[in-house]
Amino acid sequence: MFIPKEELDSRRNALQEKLQVQGVDGVLLAQNMTMYYFTGTMQCQYVYMPASGLCLGLVRRNMERAAEETSVPLQRMAGFSQLPLLLAEAGHEPFRLGLELDIMPAALYLRAVKYFSCEIVDISTAVREVRQVKSEYELAQLRQAARQVDAMHRLVPEFLAEGIEELALAVELEAVLRKMGHQGISRMRSFNQEIFFGHILSGDAGGVASFLDSPTGGTGISPVQPQGPGRRIIRRGEPVSVDYGGIYNGYVVDQTRLYSVGPIKKELERAFEVALLIQEKVCEKLIPGASCDEIYQTAAAIAQKAGLSDNFMGRGDTQAKFVGHGIGLEFDEFPVLAKGSSCLLEEGAVVAVEPKFVFQSTGVVGIENVWRVCAKKPERISITPDNYLVVNHH
Amino acid sequence: MFIPKEELDSRRNALQEKLQVQGVDGVLLAQNMTMYYFTGTMQCQYVYMPASGLCLGLVRRNMERAAEETSVPLQRMAGFSQLPLLLAEAGHEPFRLGLELDIMPAALYLRAVKYFSCEIVDISTAVREVRQVKSEYELAQLRQAARQVDAMHRLVPEFLAEGIEELALAVELEAVLRKMGHQGISRMRSFNQEIFFGHILSGDAGGVASFLDSPTGGTGISPVQPQGPGRRIIRRGEPVSVDYGGIYNGYVVDQTRLYSVGPIKKELERAFEVALLIQEKVCEKLIPGASCDEIYQTAAAIAQKAGLSDNFMGRGDTQAKFVGHGIGLEFDEFPVLAKGSSCLLEEGAVVAVEPKFVFQSTGVVGIENVWRVCAKKPERISITPDNYLVVNHH
Repeated sequence: MFIPKEELDSRRNALQEKLQVQGVDGVLLAQNMTMYYFTGTMQCQYVYMPASGLCLGLVRRNMERAAEETSVPLQRMAGFSQLPLLLAEAGHEPFRLGLELDIMPAALYLRAVKYFSCEIVDISTAVREVRQVKSEYELAQLRQAARQVDAMHRLVPEFLAEGIEELALAVELEAVLRKMGHQGISRMRSFNQEIFFGHILSGDAGGVASFLDSPTGGTGISPVQPQGPGRRIIRRGEPVSVDYGGIYNGYVVDQTRLYSVGPIKKELERAFEVALLIQEKVCEKLIPGASCDEIYQTAAAIAQKAGLSDNFMGRGDTQAKFVGHGIGLEFDEFPVLAKGSSCLLEEGAVVAVEPKFVFQSTGVVGIENVWRVCAKKPERISITPDNYLVVNHH
Repeated sequence: MFIPKEELDSRRNALQEKLQVQGVDGVLLAQNMTMYYFTGTMQCQYVYMPASGLCLGLVRRNMERAAEETSVPLQRMAGFSQLPLLLAEAGHEPFRLGLELDIMPAALYLRAVKYFSCEIVDISTAVREVRQVKSEYELAQLRQAARQVDAMHRLVPEFLAEGIEELALAVELEAVLRKMGHQGISRMRSFNQEIFFGHILSGDAGGVASFLDSPTGGTGISPVQPQGPGRRIIRRGEPVSVDYGGIYNGYVVDQTRLYSVGPIKKELERAFEVALLIQEKVCEKLIPGASCDEIYQTAAAIAQKAGLSDNFMGRGDTQAKFVGHGIGLEFDEFPVLAKGSSCLLEEGAVVAVEPKFVFQSTGVVGIENVWRVCAKKPERISITPDNYLVVNHH
């Protein structure tokens, strides 16, 4: 088994507690990553979890591999229309069935409505709430991801040079990560959101927003891949923001560091110092029960006091309305340290805190590290030093 | 403008013809790739297309970039609930509204049901039918992608060696593609489907199926990335199947070639020859009006005659039920040369034909090339020679 049985049991118990409170009889999980989280195997399948008792994996392909990887009981199935009968035979006849409506396609939802003659409720918030709290097992994976991305950052000075394209730096760093076992694929749960390793942005490319709900975008390679590193030439004295994730056994540590060839302008250095101050003050508040909105407001107030409100987390009408986000198997997990959020932090939640300042003509400066919410103060998962690094060779 | 206005007009006209036939008043497009296809820009937006007249882009972020990239009229919007009013103000009050229900999340669909008091129909088949026929503009992109992946294949003998991991070969080839401008991200439309560059599989890893609806899977790096190249060591005399896509301006040329260090077993070489024969016979049938099911049956019959039915397109209950698939901005476009398909080929459709044979203990052998359906015989888009290559150095 790739994920220990006790770990899977504990994850199931956490969701089942919520199902019982919400009066949901069972959930039919359908998203690859959620099914992996609760079973330890990623197949062409559905997973039924009753409000109490064991899960049942309903596997189309492939049973052989699923059986090797999971301790969850398995059953073959040929298609969706079979599910109600197969579940009834296993003793499951839900009156209130939970589905992850935030990401399940409408056509599949309509099939569920047709084949299950029962009430259907959206269970996606409960699933995401369970997934946001990381276990010791998950922390061990995150710590390995932190080592991976740290090793990459230590090699940036070797590859960063005046006159090369952002893409050239990106290709070198992607190869470094892949050789250390980075899985390649970066995953986001939300519809229409995607990312390839992350954002390496120089100079005014740091000021280009994209469809991605993020403080940075970048030009990318073309309008059909309009984010991340592009063909822009890196020049002396420009900020180069390296925001690439390490991924180990699926778990991401999203991390940003600031570099340049030759020193950047004083106003950018000053903004970088403000980002570090925001990180410090935000982390003082990363404790169980803290309000995500209040944390965002704390950050925004420091930006305002520094006269940088218009540059905080983006610029103009493309500003992101958060200063940090949950991270784990996906880049966009709960909780979000967002303006107006009613969410309170839970112990064990893991967040990437990323205060950044975006200047249209000069670029982006900021920091990003991953933290675990603990009783008194957060545990830092990222291990790379925070300092801005001037590369002076060449 | 990145995509010429005439190209966008022609794409719109093609979908509008279908809308008129189907009595749909307009479609609200919501998937990034479909919106890009019809507007030439990828933003956080929705795109409304009436059954006749111009499209309207409803842009949340960012307007600046959208205006630079598209000739489609644009309007700012703040959120989904505003859409009915904004559309009514622009003269659009559909009674029958089309949505891409195959990929639109259920929660978004339910918001559409709530805010639009009209009939909602699934328009995804019409959208995919329009997108399957490629224009001269699109062919130009595909030809560049073919050059990119060809250049990669020509470097395989330089990197392939006995004793290295699949992943090591993969990292080198990924870097080659990226340096030539490959965008990194590979896109699939279908729910829960994903791919990172493709599959590089050696020996018995070629016999490992995954959740992906494909003849091959591979071990991948771990159960959380359970497809594609992994940590397996490549040995002498094993088939090494290199199935990586070239991508230029978003357009994919998916292509597979067979390599080995030292010769493979005779039975595998023979199966490879059968794959070449299937390719030849399938291509004779790639003409407008041909039945996708009949094409599949032609291929399956050759496999059967060669005594290879159990190995064709996978093995046992994990066999894929197709011999080729549409390709363009996504890896899983229409048409699918699938068993039981009622689809007839259209002139201008572009398909990746990939006859492959999978042997549990020895691996996968086969070929994949991209073709355009033309009046008398298909045009070959792939330019790499088909031959199996034995690498003998080291």
